Parts: sequence; structure tokens; C-alpha cells
Amino acid sequence: MNVVIIGASGYSGAELASLVVKHPNLTLTGCYVSEGSLDKKKLLSDLYPEHLGLLDLPLLPLSESAFHDIQIGADYVCLCTDHKVSVDLAPRFLAMSKKVFDLSGGYRLASNDDYVTYYGFEHKHPELLNKAAYGLAEWNGDAIAEAQLVAVAGCYPTAALNALKPLQQAGLLSEQRIIINAVSGVTGAGRKASVGTHFCEVSLAPYGLFNHRHGPEIEQHLGHQVLFTPHLGNFPRGILETIYVQLKPNVTSVQVNQAYQVLANEPLIRLLGDKIPSIKGVTKQPYVDIGWQQQGQQLIVIAAIDNLLKGAAGQALQCINLSMNLDHTTGLKGAF
Amino acid sequence: MNVVIIGASGYSGAELASLVVKHPNLTLTGCYVSEGSLDKKKLLSDLYPEHLGLLDLPLLPLSESAFHDIQIGADYVCLCTDHKVSVDLAPRFLAMSKKVFDLSGGYRLASNDDYVTYYGFEHKHPELLNKAAYGLAEWNGDAIAEAQLVAVAGCYPTAALNALKPLQQAGLLSEQRIIINAVSGVTGAGRKASVGTHFCEVSLAPYGLFNHRHGPEIEQHLGHQVLFTPHLGNFPRGILETIYVQLKPNVTSVQVNQAYQVLANEPLIRLLGDKIPSIKGVTKQPYVDIGWQQQGQQLIVIAAIDNLLKGAAGQALQCINLSMNLDHTTGLKGAF
Amino acid sequence: MNVVIIGASGYSGAELASLVVKHPNLTLTGCYVSEGSLDKKKLLSDLYPEHLGLLDLPLLPLSESAFHDIQIGADYVCLCTDHKVSVDLAPRFLAMSKKVFDLSGGYRLASNDDYVTYYGFEHKHPELLNKAAYGLAEWNGDAIAEAQLVAVAGCYPTAALNALKPLQQAGLLSEQRIIINAVSGVTGAGRKASVGTHFCEVSLAPYGLFNHRHGPEIEQHLGHQVLFTPHLGNFPRGILETIYVQLKPNVTSVQVNQAYQVLANEPLIRLLGDKIPSIKGVTKQPYVDIGWQQQGQQLIVIAAIDNLLKGAAGQALQCINLSMNLDHTTGLKGAF
Amino acid sequence: MNVVIIGASGYSGAELASLVVKHPNLTLTGCYVSEGSLDKKKLLSDLYPEHLGLLDLPLLPLSESAFHDIQIGADYVCLCTDHKVSVDLAPRFLAMSKKVFDLSGGYRLASNDDYVTYYGFEHKHPELLNKAAYGLAEWNGDAIAEAQLVAVAGCYPTAALNALKPLQQAGLLSEQRIIINAVSGVTGAGRKASVGTHFCEVSLAPYGLFNHRHGPEIEQHLGHQVLFTPHLGNFPRGILETIYVQLKPNVTSVQVNQAYQVLANEPLIRLLGDKIPSIKGVTKQPYVDIGWQQQGQQLIVIAAIDNLLKGAAGQALQCINLSMNLDHTTGLKGAF
Repeated sequence: MNVVIIGASGYSGAELASLVVKHPNLTLTGCYVSEGSLDKKKLLSDLYPEHLGLLDLPLLPLSESAFHDIQIGADYVCLCTDHKVSVDLAPRFLAMSKKVFDLSGGYRLASNDDYVTYYGFEHKHPELLNKAAYGLAEWNGDAIAEAQLVAVAGCYPTAALNALKPLQQAGLLSEQRIIINAVSGVTGAGRKASVGTHFCEVSLAPYGLFNHRHGPEIEQHLGHQVLFTPHLGNFPRGILETIYVQLKPNVTSVQVNQAYQVLANEPLIRLLGDKIPSIKGVTKQPYVDIGWQQQGQQLIVIAAIDNLLKGAAGQALQCINLSMNLDHTTGLKGAF
Repeated sequence: MNVVIIGASGYSGAELASLVVKHPNLTLTGCYVSEGSLDKKKLLSDLYPEHLGLLDLPLLPLSESAFHDIQIGADYVCLCTDHKVSVDLAPRFLAMSKKVFDLSGGYRLASNDDYVTYYGFEHKHPELLNKAAYGLAEWNGDAIAEAQLVAVAGCYPTAALNALKPLQQAGLLSEQRIIINAVSGVTGAGRKASVGTHFCEVSLAPYGLFNHRHGPEIEQHLGHQVLFTPHLGNFPRGILETIYVQLKPNVTSVQVNQAYQVLANEPLIRLLGDKIPSIKGVTKQPYVDIGWQQQGQQLIVIAAIDNLLKGAAGQALQCINLSMNLDHTTGLKGAF
Repeated sequence: MNVVIIGASGYSGAELASLVVKHPNLTLTGCYVSEGSLDKKKLLSDLYPEHLGLLDLPLLPLSESAFHDIQIGADYVCLCTDHKVSVDLAPRFLAMSKKVFDLSGGYRLASNDDYVTYYGFEHKHPELLNKAAYGLAEWNGDAIAEAQLVAVAGCYPTAALNALKPLQQAGLLSEQRIIINAVSGVTGAGRKASVGTHFCEVSLAPYGLFNHRHGPEIEQHLGHQVLFTPHLGNFPRGILETIYVQLKPNVTSVQVNQAYQVLANEPLIRLLGDKIPSIKGVTKQPYVDIGWQQQGQQLIVIAAIDNLLKGAAGQALQCINLSMNLDHTTGLKGAF
Repeated sequence: MNVVIIGASGYSGAELASLVVKHPNLTLTGCYVSEGSLDKKKLLSDLYPEHLGLLDLPLLPLSESAFHDIQIGADYVCLCTDHKVSVDLAPRFLAMSKKVFDLSGGYRLASNDDYVTYYGFEHKHPELLNKAAYGLAEWNGDAIAEAQLVAVAGCYPTAALNALKPLQQAGLLSEQRIIINAVSGVTGAGRKASVGTHFCEVSLAPYGLFNHRHGPEIEQHLGHQVLFTPHLGNFPRGILETIYVQLKPNVTSVQVNQAYQVLANEPLIRLLGDKIPSIKGVTKQPYVDIGWQQQGQQLIVIAAIDNLLKGAAGQALQCINLSMNLDHTTGLKGAF
């Protein structure tokens, strides 16, 4: 199958490019950037010297002729673009009968109202919102396999949902709001130059209190209220979430362990039991690491992912694999 | 006044030494390490090259003759030693009528039972526990000024208590357990070589779930239940705490702001209102930075300190200043 | 004396502001940025939260009325601006009879030709080049004290010249070109957002091979040929230079040690002998640390400074002190 | 072929284990540590959580029964042990007719005298020194393929020799001593706890001036005098070498470029021409990146490797591949 990546110069796009070129069943036929991008015509390996020899591919401007080339030559279109750009581009590629994998947040929430509230814009194609499959690979495989449009899950929600859905499905959660304290590496802020990502300015601190868009994404796909607080951390890659859950009364540790068995056979989920995940354990790895400890009704769940792999490009590749009816771990398990 | 520091080779001890030598009213008359220490007879500036010229002082073994020297020459004894060592040493120096400032946790909790539960040892001198003044400088100045033995507050509790006592005093806290998600820099783990503090092994992760000894310290000095979860972070100095508070119903933002005014005139507390503290803002600074944002009954308070200054040596110096009836900020405010 | 800082929002400017406000003989009367700066009207402490309470000063646009205010209210004008901007501004302030301390490279080299070659622009005021005193504080104190215009020495040259001038003066250097391998922290690249200073892009690598402008600056003020190669390093502050010197035949270690004694009484130079300087030893310190080891005719000299202190704001303050006939270490020695 | 790794708990050993288990033609049949190791009986993935699921292999004590198991079950023995331990172990495994790949420096130098001078011990088996093939894969493939004992090249020498041998072979080097300024990540110092590798103590600084054992290793295998100065850098993995070469008179850039063509077809060498290698470009990559720029007779060559891959485990795997008459890049090229 032929894949093109729109927005290939960013961290998620380049990571996805590196996965696609090594995948046994995929061919990367085009890497695109916006027509105004300063990276236009550079090689991807000019921007990412670690990929010299692997990704010596030109970054093409997404011109009208590029759309034509994509129409002729691509099967799968991956959008690693800004939310609003994705909202606009997806219908155009759907109209070409391409399968579209959107790594932005453009198609993850339920309604236009959510977009107005949390993204600050009117959604131009709200009718597509419930046609998009939510790309949380281990939980929504059938829908992903069949969908024309996959809204690949957000980075923070991927960690949170894998950590919490087992408890939710097992009916162990009390009504109390779950607190999710999350820390992301700086690649999560994108590659664009800004004072906030300057080497000398980065410093552990929270942001987006009470209003980060991944809060409603988690709530909608979990079915439970959360208080989600992201932080920027002093490391390039990875997300660590420390999640504070109030269990229903009398829930035992056996029940909690049992609940997590729903993920026990998932090759890209590593259940650590009472051991504690860390950023180091998942950096450049395609896994979600999940550990938990309980005291009475209080349960602390810790989840860790690489934000660019399981939190973006890795999970996008799982979704592509599902579309091809391949084992969803193809090109990921044992590849690092 | 003449000061000696026991355990001067560690991060807190060296930091305190650097403050004492620059203090207008103090003389550092001796820096001691245990008799078995490999650092014995080295200069403090051999271990801390940044202090070359300032701290070219020998690390003396704490031999019997050293005790004699201290008896003759010191007014204040600062213990930067392990908890158990502090428990043993404090009475000996108290018997010499020295004022003792203990930077360990040896005299911070209420009872022997607490030490058995949280520190894993029987406290040899439980009768001293309620004679020790808790060294939380802005809140307990009178007691500190009068005490012979000051248990300088722990690093994590210093941030948490300054952030929460205003709310507690104003009666704004609901019954619900407060969640304190805390991240400390690696100096918090001490200078002793260990795989856990190896440059290549440090990685953001929680530790001490449900059983860290700073949990009960916070609870006893706050008078409210907390769930305290510390993390090790990828930076040398600093503590950031993200604190999740459930307020009583109908508490307004005006009331919250009003509550914090109790600290408004404290020179070493910086109230940031809805601005967000960060590690960067407090590194090598003597302050507690406190910010907060509210949504309904949910309040998020963020507190940041330098663990070696406000979280250890800086606050110890505040306590010493109080003992001398000096402005408690002497040698700290504007000194960095 | 009243000081204004032009370009106060950058790393050197803010560092200088923090030194000036704590200086016993100086008053900081204005902090200026270019009229087009996005930081205009912000407080300096909005940009530098560590300086909250100390630098709650507005960043004023350098408008015509600002020039008027400076004419009336300032004694000393510090230029923390781009090279070309400094070249233009200096004569304007000199015409007001202000003393000008230029932290850029605008007045450090000997001739217009040097500026064309190494800075890429025609120097608009070449007649001022030999009126400017080169602000290498320990070596050029008399000229600095008398000059109206001081070209504060560059960061890399400050380390290199203090390391090499003792050998040059003692006549110990062979003819062979000296190799200077230098590594600077990222603050050296300025605070402006760029991909090159992005947290995830910074990685140890050389730059400016054979053509960095600090090469000729070192050569002109040393009087010896050098091959200077700067590198960007993975740390915020500090410069480490490893300098490879070929000595004249039969130069003994006694002679080398003797040569360095010319600096032995300088309070801001720390001679380490055969001990090895490091970035850690000088970070947030006002010193140059110099160590050396010899084998036959080969001498390796290692020099380390904090690029923002001794390499910029600290040395600028030394120059200001010299202008006031104060001890040149006022506000620096023991201040950190 | 069956492989065992002695010293598998260290960084090089664990890296090699991760390569061997993914290699199509190899089976990892045993991971050993010394009988006194505290890591004995742990799983390798307990120490390296990133390898959970991949390296859930017990660390076995190297007891007498272990030697028996190795005799029966292994074809290749990889020594990731201390130099002196390797010297002792190699003959024992050679006597079992195993092929031995020694990642230490125990068999890299020419004579017992070298070991006395640079390693500080008498070599117990000097007769093996000239039977050991020097494991510099791209340059010594035939000897490596035939040898029973391969002394895998050191990390610093691997970068230096690949950068300099092309120039040496082409006869372009003047007599002048070559200066090699090298910086290594902290994994190069090993995983053992020490104050020097403490997160808060690591700071860019040189070490081993004039006497590091990789100096003679480079000289012996290059055939040219060098002044080699290693530095510890603030990053976990990678080596960057900035190499200052004096060319013979009148050597042109065409000649230099031509000289490097000897490596042009090597899949694990990336010739960057006048582009500049960086640590980032090679981290977790199996390559040597080489760039160069010339001015007159002065040539600066920059070489970068991942010290654990091309500088240790990666090159060991190349040597193993050569022993099996496989493409030497098997399991490396495109594997990351």
C-alpha cells in the first residue's frame, strides 16, 4: 500500500515516515509540507540527521499538483497537520476515496460545540465527526479496520484511556472525579521555534489548567469525569501520567488485577503490576507501560508512553495495520 | 554567633555552609563528617568546585575531640545528617546547651509510633519530640525563636504547607483528601553514589506510593488528610507540587485570594495568583512560589521551591535568624 | 550612578540588570528594548520568573522620548544589542557624553576590514574603533577606567585570553598555531526562538569552523595565531575551552606555573594548577577557572567561565566598577 | 549460532544482548555476571525496563557450572567485562575452542609493556596479543573473520580511526601530531554507581590528559602520533570527536574528498562532506558520521558515533557477522 504523509516535517510526521519506510507492506510515496513552509524542498534527513540514509526524501509543497499526485498514487493519507488544517484536508482526501489517518485532534470529539469550546473554532465538517473511528488501537480495532477516516487518539488520552478503561469496564470506579497528573516531553509541543521550547526556558511546570482539550477527549472516550492537568517536562520524549482513582467501596486488589487482564494479551501493552513505569522505560518504545498500587479505596495508576510512538506515529501505524487486516503490531513489536 | 555543621559534605550541608559564611552575623567554625567518611580531611571546595575560594574549609571527622571543640567553640549546631544519626546527636548537643537545628526528619513527627511506622526505627528520645519546634519559618516563628531544638521542616512539606495552610486557616477546605503530586530534583536524593541517581538512570517516575514519610509530616502540621505522591525528576534542584484541593461548596475566588493574603507580606513567599510557578523560577532562589486556579469547587494550587534552599538550608538559616531575633530573611533576600 | 540597559530582554541584558540592581553604587533607571519588540511593556520578571520581586521593571521601547529620558537621567549606557545595532547606537550616546559599555562585538576588532570579513557589514564608525577600550578587565584596567566607550570582551575570548596572555607575556609560546576547542552553553545563542535552540534539537556539535568572529578577536588581543572552533553544548550556561599549546623547547613546568602568577592576586581568577576546571565549577559564578597540564612541549590549558557572567554581564560590571574607580569586583565577589 | 555474554548487566553488555536477541542468525543462550554481583538472578529487564518483554532473561552467576554450560552450549563468547577480567577469561574460552569477542581493552595493544604503562597491570597472556584480531570492522574484516579472538576496537578509537585512516592511507598527513578533542556521553563511564556519574555531578570537563589508554590504541592502529584528550559530556550516549589535522603542503580539498571515498560504499559509515556531525545524529544509530572542512593545510575532521553501538555492541555484532561470513551489517542497518 502507498502512503503519503502531510505535515512530514514535524516530530510526529517524521517519526511516522521512519516507521513507514521500514514497514514490510508499505511504501512511502510522498512527504508533504504546506506551500509556505521554509522546509519545502529540503530532505527530511536534512532536518533529522539521525535518519540520514533512511529518509533522504524531499519535503514537497502541498500544491494543487501535489493533490493530483496523491489522487493517483496514494492509498493512505496521514495527516500530521494542525487541527484546523486536518479538518479542512480530510474531506478532500475522503472524496478521493483515500483512507485518511488524522493524527491531529480535528475529528476526535463528538460535536461542533466541543470544538468551539475546547479548540476555539467552528468545525467545518461536523457531519464527519461520528463517521470517524477513534483510533485507540487496542480498544476500537473493528471500527478502525472499517473506517475511511480514523481520528488517531491523542497522546495524553492514549496513556489515560489504556490505564482507565479496564477499571471502567469492570465497574470498579466510584463516582468521584479521577485526577490525571500528566507530564509530557518537549516534542509534544512540536518542532516549531518558540521561546517556550527554547533549551534554556523549558522547565517543569503545568499548563492548560482546567481547559486542555485532552480532558474532554478522555472523558468522552472513557465515560467518566476527569480532572486532567498536563505539564511540560525536562525531557525530549515521553509521557508519564500519575492517575488518582477513587474505587468503589470494598474493591479488592484481586479485582483490580483481574480488571487489567483484559489487556494481558496485548503485545504493545506491558502490565507492570505494582512495579512503577518511568519515562526511561518507554522512550523510543512502542508500548504503554501500566503499573498500579492500591490502599483502601485509593488507587494510583501510573501509565507511560513515548508520545511520538504509542502517542502518535506508532498508534497511527497500528491503525494502518488494522486497515490492512495485518497484525496490528507489524513494524512495531521488536522493531526498536 | 558561631555555627558548626555536622554532615557538611552533603548537598544540604554544603548549601548551608555557603549561606553561613556569607551571613553578616554568623561565623562558620567547623564542618564535620562522620569519622568513617571518605571525604574526611578534604576541603569542602574539593567536593564543590563552584565554592572554590569561598569554602576552602576542611571536612573534619566527628571524633571525640571534635565534640570537645564544638562544646567550647560553637553556639549553633546544624545537623545535616541521616535521620537516625540526628536523633542520636541532638540530645548530646542539647546537653551542651547548644541550639540545635536539625535538617533531618528525626524530630518532625509527633510520636515514637510515627517513627516506627514511617521511618522504620524506634525513636530513642521520644520525650524530645514535643519540645522540638517545627521549623516552618513563616508559620512558627515564635516557637522557633525560643526553642533549643528546631526540627527544620522537610522539603516537600515546606512547599505543601505554605500552599495549604492559608486555605486551612480560612476554613475553605472540604473534608475530601487533598492530592499532592510532587516532583523533586535529584539533589533531593542526596550526593551518595547510587545507581538510582546515575546520570543515565534518572528518569521521571513516582516512588514511595502511599508510604513516604513526608505524607504524615504534612498531615500532622496541616491538620488535614492528604495523599502525597513524590516523583524523581530530570533536573538537579527544585520541587514542584501540583495540589488538587476540593473546596467547600460555594467558596469563591475572592475568598481563596483573601485566604492567601496571610502570606502577602512575607518576603520569601511570592504569591503568583493565577500565574503558574515553575522549577526554573525558584532554582537557586530562597522563595516559595505559589499560584492557583479554581473551577467550581476544584482548586489547583501549584507550589515551587528550591529543595536545597527553602526546602533545607535556606529555611534552616531563617530559623537561625529567628533564634538571633534578626529579620528572618537576613542572608537570603536579594542574596542570589 | 544611574545605569540604563538597552536590549534588556536578552540573557546578557537581564543578567546585567540583576547585577546592577544589587550593586551598592548603581541605580538601574531604565530597561529598554527595540520599538518593535514583542516584549515591550512586559516586566522583566515576566520573562525571567526567577527575578520576580527583584526585576519587576517594565521593558520600555527605545523611542525618541526614551533617548531624551536617557540623556537626562543616565550616566552609563549598557548596550546588550546586536552588533550592528550597537555600532549605530554607541555614537549617539557618546554624543550625549554618556559612558557606553557595549557587550556586543561592534567595537572589539581593529578595522573596518575586519568587520567586512568577519561580521559581514561595513562599520559605520571606524574612527571609534581605536578609541574604544577593550573590556578585558584584569588586563586593561587603566584604559577601561578612562575610556568613554568600552567594548566588553567577547565570551569565548575572555576565557581564551585569560588562559593564554600569561604564557604570551612570559614568552613561552612557540610559533605554532594554538588550537582552542571551545564549548558554550545554549544561552550563548541568545533567547530568540529558533529551531537551533529548541530543547529537542540542541546536541553537542561544532559550528563556525574557520570563520567564527571570536577567532580574530582572540588573535588581535593575544598577538598570536589561533585556530578557534566553537561548539554548542547540552547545557544552559557556561563555556569550557580546551586549549592545545605548543611551548618553546625546554620550557619547564616551573616556568609555566610562574607565568600564571601574574593572575595570582586577581580575585575573579581562580588558578587551579593541575586540577581541571568544569562547567559545573563556574555556573552562576563570576570567575575564570584556569587549569593546565604539560607533557614535554605540549601544554593543555583548560579555561571555564559562565558565559553570562564573566563572559558578559559580570565583566561589564567589572568595567563599570573600573570607571567609578571602585574595586573592580564590587557586586561580584561573594555575591552568588 | 549460540551466543553468551559475560558482563551482561553493564551498558555495553545489555546493548549487545538486545542486538543478539533480534538477530536472525543468533540465539542468546546465556547472560552472565560475576559471582559476587548484586544483580545476580535479576532479570536483565529488571535493570533495563525499556527491554521488558525483550530481555526477560536471568543474569546468571559465572560459576564453575556456568563455564560447563558455556562449554556445551555456546559458539561465541562475548566479554563485556573489565580489562583485567577479560585478559583472564579469554584464554579459558579459547581453550574450549570458542570464538571470543572481547569488548574490553584487554587485547587491543601490542605488548605487555603497553599494558604496564597504560593499564597499570602485567598482561598475563602477552603471547595472545598478536593473535587477537583488532575488531575495527570496516578495516580489518578478513582478520576478524578468521580470528579465534577478536579485540573489538575501543569507543573513542573507532571514531578516530575511521576518521583518520583514509587520510593516512592516502598519504595526506603531515608529520605534526594530530589533536583529537573527544567528548563522550556518561554511559561510557559504565553503570556502576559513583559520585562522578551522579546526575548532579556530571558536567562537561576533560579527564585523563596525556595518559588515556585510547591514545596509544589510536596511535598503534593508525601509525601516526596523536594527542588525545577525552571529556565527559552532559548526555547519556554518544561520542563527538573534533580532530585537528595538519595536512602536507598543497593537499587539495579534492584529494581529501578522494581519500574518504575508500569508505563511500560502507553501509555503516555516513560521509557528510562539509556538513557537521552531531551527537543527536548518531544516538541509537549504528553509524559513524564523518564530516570535514579544510583551510589551507589545516583540516578539521568531525566524527560521531553512539558509544554503545558503533563504539561497542554494534561493532561487536559486525565482528560476529564477519565470523559467520554474513553481511557485516546484519541486524544493524535499518534496525533502529
